[in-house]
Amino acid sequence: MEKDVTEIRKAIRDIPNFPKPGVVFKDITPLLGSGPLFTRTIDLLADRYENQKVDMVLGVESRGFIIGAALAYRLGAGFCIVRKPGKLPYETHSASYELEYGSDILEVHRDALPPRARVLIADDLIATGGTAAAAIALVSKLGGQVVECAFVIELTFLRGREKLKPYGVFSLLQYDSE
Amino acid sequence: MEKDVTEIRKAIRDIPNFPKPGVVFKDITPLLGSGPLFTRTIDLLADRYENQKVDMVLGVESRGFIIGAALAYRLGAGFCIVRKPGKLPYETHSASYELEYGSDILEVHRDALPPRARVLIADDLIATGGTAAAAIALVSKLGGQVVECAFVIELTFLRGREKLKPYGVFSLLQYDSE
Repeated sequence: MEKDVTEIRKAIRDIPNFPKPGVVFKDITPLLGSGPLFTRTIDLLADRYENQKVDMVLGVESRGFIIGAALAYRLGAGFCIVRKPGKLPYETHSASYELEYGSDILEVHRDALPPRARVLIADDLIATGGTAAAAIALVSKLGGQVVECAFVIELTFLRGREKLKPYGVFSLLQYDSE
Repeated sequence: MEKDVTEIRKAIRDIPNFPKPGVVFKDITPLLGSGPLFTRTIDLLADRYENQKVDMVLGVESRGFIIGAALAYRLGAGFCIVRKPGKLPYETHSASYELEYGSDILEVHRDALPPRARVLIADDLIATGGTAAAAIALVSKLGGQVVECAFVIELTFLRGREKLKPYGVFSLLQYDSE
């Protein structure tokens, strides 16, 4: 696994000053673009949850759809989508989350989860944890149980995992500074 | 296969007047939410391409990420993402496509495809075919070869497949009227 993780890390590209000056963006597109590395990334995440009876994987628009859908397929689970306001066509619940300036809202369909579903929240990256915290709030509103939150990349210096307690965080790659 | 397709069709929900009055939206979230049906949907698409040496699957933001990423994982292919303007962090090519009123733009990274990559374009639904036509244009700009365009749903009465010629269209479900 260690060797695979090293290869995966090499395929992530730093883009300075995106989306704004002073921020270093972790670009996963070279990783996604490699069949072997994309496969391995999903398998490494899935290995941890193989025997955890995951009913549903939840992914947040848009990059969370990539990791979440592939992981749901790999686990034989359903896929629950969480989107920006106004994008989902049926009745929704919503949850707000904090951004650096202000806040934003996420929505989920009211019938998105079966009763007491065991839900794995998946995304490409955890920064401050605001998005995942909102996803957890939505799972709770729907009566589901959060298994864990799984990410390809964790920016540990932003301490997102603190915000998600008591729920656990698993990540393949950790970055302890920009 | 016919029985599976019938089950998949039953899991797609009509939402009248979304996103605007007079339009009937095909809501795939109940299909995605069923582990067995989501798995079967991806497998039925993948079966067709198993021996076609697909190097990359291309998905357009956002629902195309769901079908495309799961299909890429299933085929062991890389995943190429196409996004709305300003979302991709690296150097891009762009292509415009027609909407009912006006037009919009899609972008792809300039290094998104290896040379002469065989690319399968995947999305949840083909309507008039504008989005897929833009994706084809982007693959051409990058020097890739389009294998085919694959969709879960085809709204045949909108004749999108005409717009994509000479490239082929494959769909699991066809609707010949709203």
